Amino acid sequence: MSSEQDHTAENENGTERILAFSDGVFAIAITLLVLNLTVPEVKSGLSDALFQRWPAYLSYLLSFVVIGIIWAQHHHIFRFIKRTDHPFLLINIAFLMWVSFIPFPTAVLAQYLKNPTEQRAAMLFYSGTFVVGAALFNLLWRYASYRDRLVGKGIERRSLDKITSSYNLGPISYLVDFILSALYVPAGLALFFVIAVFYAVSPLPGGRPPSVPHPSRPRSD
Amino acid sequence: MSSEQDHTAENENGTERILAFSDGVFAIAITLLVLNLTVPEVKSGLSDALFQRWPAYLSYLLSFVVIGIIWAQHHHIFRFIKRTDHPFLLINIAFLMWVSFIPFPTAVLAQYLKNPTEQRAAMLFYSGTFVVGAALFNLLWRYASYRDRLVGKGIERRSLDKITSSYNLGPISYLVDFILSALYVPAGLALFFVIAVFYAVSPLPGGRPPSVPHPSRPRSD
Amino acid sequence: MSSEQDHTAENENGTERILAFSDGVFAIAITLLVLNLTVPEVKSGLSDALFQRWPAYLSYLLSFVVIGIIWAQHHHIFRFIKRTDHPFLLINIAFLMWVSFIPFPTAVLAQYLKNPTEQRAAMLFYSGTFVVGAALFNLLWRYASYRDRLVGKGIERRSLDKITSSYNLGPISYLVDFILSALYVPAGLALFFVIAVFYAVSPLPGGRPPSVPHPSRPRSD
Amino acid sequence: MSSEQDHTAENENGTERILAFSDGVFAIAITLLVLNLTVPEVKSGLSDALFQRWPAYLSYLLSFVVIGIIWAQHHHIFRFIKRTDHPFLLINIAFLMWVSFIPFPTAVLAQYLKNPTEQRAAMLFYSGTFVVGAALFNLLWRYASYRDRLVGKGIERRSLDKITSSYNLGPISYLVDFILSALYVPAGLALFFVIAVFYAVSPLPGGRPPSVPHPSRPRSD
Repeated sequence: MSSEQDHTAENENGTERILAFSDGVFAIAITLLVLNLTVPEVKSGLSDALFQRWPAYLSYLLSFVVIGIIWAQHHHIFRFIKRTDHPFLLINIAFLMWVSFIPFPTAVLAQYLKNPTEQRAAMLFYSGTFVVGAALFNLLWRYASYRDRLVGKGIERRSLDKITSSYNLGPISYLVDFILSALYVPAGLALFFVIAVFYAVSPLPGGRPPSVPHPSRPRSD
Repeated sequence: MSSEQDHTAENENGTERILAFSDGVFAIAITLLVLNLTVPEVKSGLSDALFQRWPAYLSYLLSFVVIGIIWAQHHHIFRFIKRTDHPFLLINIAFLMWVSFIPFPTAVLAQYLKNPTEQRAAMLFYSGTFVVGAALFNLLWRYASYRDRLVGKGIERRSLDKITSSYNLGPISYLVDFILSALYVPAGLALFFVIAVFYAVSPLPGGRPPSVPHPSRPRSD
Repeated sequence: MSSEQDHTAENENGTERILAFSDGVFAIAITLLVLNLTVPEVKSGLSDALFQRWPAYLSYLLSFVVIGIIWAQHHHIFRFIKRTDHPFLLINIAFLMWVSFIPFPTAVLAQYLKNPTEQRAAMLFYSGTFVVGAALFNLLWRYASYRDRLVGKGIERRSLDKITSSYNLGPISYLVDFILSALYVPAGLALFFVIAVFYAVSPLPGGRPPSVPHPSRPRSD
Repeated sequence: MSSEQDHTAENENGTERILAFSDGVFAIAITLLVLNLTVPEVKSGLSDALFQRWPAYLSYLLSFVVIGIIWAQHHHIFRFIKRTDHPFLLINIAFLMWVSFIPFPTAVLAQYLKNPTEQRAAMLFYSGTFVVGAALFNLLWRYASYRDRLVGKGIERRSLDKITSSYNLGPISYLVDFILSALYVPAGLALFFVIAVFYAVSPLPGGRPPSVPHPSRPRSD
């Protein structure tokens, strides 16, 4: 075995650990969203009370889908990222801190979306959170891909550039949504929904990286 | 190594990631059910207060067993599903959104099962949730198995068809339970219990797929 | 490769999935215990208020250590159990339902341990829960080990019998603790602590099974 | 295969299980921190109410970053630790009990940081928790590394000594922070922040251990 391959194997191990920990945080944060759905305390009229909670279901739906998509995108970039270093670890922790935070603005939106005087503040807090998150995700990717810093060998520069330009769109669209929310809350909410659907149906950018034999899970043939 | 095998390995890796993430969501959702069991605030008569919470224990039991069975079934179909694509990923996220949601109707049922005027609404909400879930699970399986879209090679069509017809029963039986709950709540509850026991004791449909040497976890012989 | 080995490999895969799911439930249940520790609402005297919560810390400590030990024991028996079948899967789900339940009696104990009239009911609920759990754990092990039903090949009967007789002690000691709690709560609490320490410092019963080359994670030499 | 290698493989498997369980507890504890962020109940002035919660965000940030760093350090020492024994398992459970506990002092700090009479008690509780944690982490490492008890072969004593002396600093710095918090809370808070940043930007001590071919995940070349 060449020492080169050995070195790569070490580092793959590094990204596997980060990815497994990140997956845990994603799975927990996405499942904790349900804790925002609290049982209404009524003497009668439970059906009504449940229906009137539509802002809670809507924000559950939005946050769940968006975290699900971000999970898929986070996994996607780790198909290209094959090494890790200390700053990357820290950026990823900051990114996970943001993922874990999402249930909070979701709960705020759920509670205040029907409040005419406060829905604007709630929606700004919610969409603003995603501006920050999209920026952090870009930072994570750009740090890793800049001058092939942490990406695997044999990956074409063109694929990386496609990913980079695709992810550029994220912070911009959430920023537009933030501004729109300030002007008219329902429009901000609608655009948020459109952005989520757009990312859900779009194929993952940059295609799949060429398959290299995985050093740590070899085949015996 | 043929490029064919290589391609399969890539895709297996894809389902492994989805399965691991799904497992995380299942494990968290099933464990969060306990948060519905809140400590009674009494000055005296704790035993009584604990016994009177039987709707909470019953709904904990029902939801735990049903999520446990669904987890086993979800794992089972991933013995056949060996590739993944973008729509499948989205259907699985929708399915997980439903799994994560279960603690909420469970909590509603726990709180209102003893309320004579509202137990019907609570039971309809609860059983209706499982109608939707069974339909989503069918969608997941049918999307993957239709024309062998995502299933592994060398799997007999007959096994797939057995699974499909077995899972057909799910939405129908929960729909019957939904209707029965509207007519008479205790009967709906009893049928729900019967359905859970039926699925628990039934063998997993379609048998085990033929064992193909797993490309990503080889054997050295 | 002989079809025999292949069959074993399939089944190992089966226990790996069950074990991973069980680990998830253990890790979540043990971490959810902290949610029983709620922040006291005081105008002044925070230190006092925090100290007076000693029943909450004590029950956190007890339940955490006991779940930790059960996790280690659960892992230990899966060194011997190498196959799985449908009843075993169901018993394990019932066992996990019990693991997930633990935070609830823990919370009851935390809240009522200082209440002179209700501490007995709380301690009986708590110790009674562990009688049931120890019985379930015995059932899990006995089902798997009876006539070598699910244990791996090449494991001496003597080791299995050692484990069986070691685990016999569990339900008995918790039952004694349950009875003692009915007579005098502090004695019940003290014995519970002694049982936990006893299991913590005892070596895992039956030793390590002989190492067989793991079919699904082979070595290339 | 020599029986020596086989033995090592067995033990590696042991640390893998412990590490996976520990990772689960870390991921859950770090994500549960968000439950401390509760939605303010206001009729109007939501923005203000959200801004006034800065102690909650600050303590979320501090605890998240510190748990994240501890996770990275915990992983780091398991690059050196390759065997496990019963006392080590128990120390690790005690350490995880501490990790799971962190959301509680975090919640106390969040609620009382703005309370002039009680902020001292809250900050002492918070920083005192980390004195204990740093001591437990030292115990974990020292138990494993003392006379190469549980470390892998071929690791230089010098690397281990570097790690030991690096981790010595932890309990001391948190103890200084504890004392400073008693004197002047803002200074204690500031030092806590400085310690977190210091550990975040410091490279992991002792470098990477020499890569030995991993027996349980071999390479086929």
